[in-house]
Amino acid sequence: MGNAPIDEAVAQLSRLPGIGRKTATRLVYWLLRSPTGTAATIGRALSALEGGVRECDTCCDFTDQIRCPICASGGREQGVVCVVEHPQDVRAFERSAGFRGRYHVLHGAISPLDGVGPAELRIRPLLERIRSDEIREVILATDPDVEGDATALYLARLLRGVGVRVTRIARGLAVGTEIEYADPASLSRALENRQEL
Amino acid sequence: MGNAPIDEAVAQLSRLPGIGRKTATRLVYWLLRSPTGTAATIGRALSALEGGVRECDTCCDFTDQIRCPICASGGREQGVVCVVEHPQDVRAFERSAGFRGRYHVLHGAISPLDGVGPAELRIRPLLERIRSDEIREVILATDPDVEGDATALYLARLLRGVGVRVTRIARGLAVGTEIEYADPASLSRALENRQEL
Repeated sequence: MGNAPIDEAVAQLSRLPGIGRKTATRLVYWLLRSPTGTAATIGRALSALEGGVRECDTCCDFTDQIRCPICASGGREQGVVCVVEHPQDVRAFERSAGFRGRYHVLHGAISPLDGVGPAELRIRPLLERIRSDEIREVILATDPDVEGDATALYLARLLRGVGVRVTRIARGLAVGTEIEYADPASLSRALENRQEL
Repeated sequence: MGNAPIDEAVAQLSRLPGIGRKTATRLVYWLLRSPTGTAATIGRALSALEGGVRECDTCCDFTDQIRCPICASGGREQGVVCVVEHPQDVRAFERSAGFRGRYHVLHGAISPLDGVGPAELRIRPLLERIRSDEIREVILATDPDVEGDATALYLARLLRGVGVRVTRIARGLAVGTEIEYADPASLSRALENRQEL
């Protein structure tokens, strides 16, 4: 229609997963009807994700610092590391408030079909942490699905002989669920019932 | 979690209608995993809606010019004005390609329950157009629902005695549908079957 800013905003919003052209159009016209500042503020918040977010030097979680608040905190147990697939999983465990150790974020799980092998995950920094820090136990908290189980098994084999206790969170979670959306109670239970691998 | 850019992006995206906290979180983490430039480009497109989009001096449709391309075009019939509720409705009629006149966008419909009266709509610029331009016919193409019918009735009364033909698009559209999402064929039919008010 010759209306470049609207067409561009619709095209850009349509790139987001689960947002089709119709939804994008609805959102853009909603923004155009909103008080001044709404579209600009939302736009700035998205732009700020770039440059403003990096990976923690220690645990690879997303952070706006060199070290994330959990790694930098003196109040967390230093000897236990909970290994998760995604940064969202750290948020889920923190909401369950059943864990006082620290985390390590792999940024994915082994999935040959998707072309994700061990080299694509943050495994090397995990090994370096285990070597240099005084870590007693590694809790493998990857998702209870095929990829998560494969990743846990791979890490368990890799850590055999390193002299660290390796456990897997209990299958208190229904098979196929995603940790990100699990309820806090089930997550606490799964942590408590973790077993030796 | 002390991660200000992520928290802010989630909070801002959650302001959009139909986007809850979980969806916003999913979108933000998708952006963080996307190639560099993705979040910045989408963010800029949203910010550009402000300042870049204004209302056409003639028809009140959204445009990035003083006059929109349809009003500025010499190829459109000058004597017929199709009055719609929303800019999206102009897009829908243009897709149906059954109309060669021009438009007028009210930016809403009369709805006392929502506090929208005639003063909130772009009715005054419509009257000015009818007075100054050589307009023979005003087609009332507000939605076929309670608010759209009330608005059409209000405008029909207002234009009585002005010496202009006033028609209402045919109820070829199912009651309760929104023009924005109607199929092109039904829209063409509804225009053809328009009736004297």
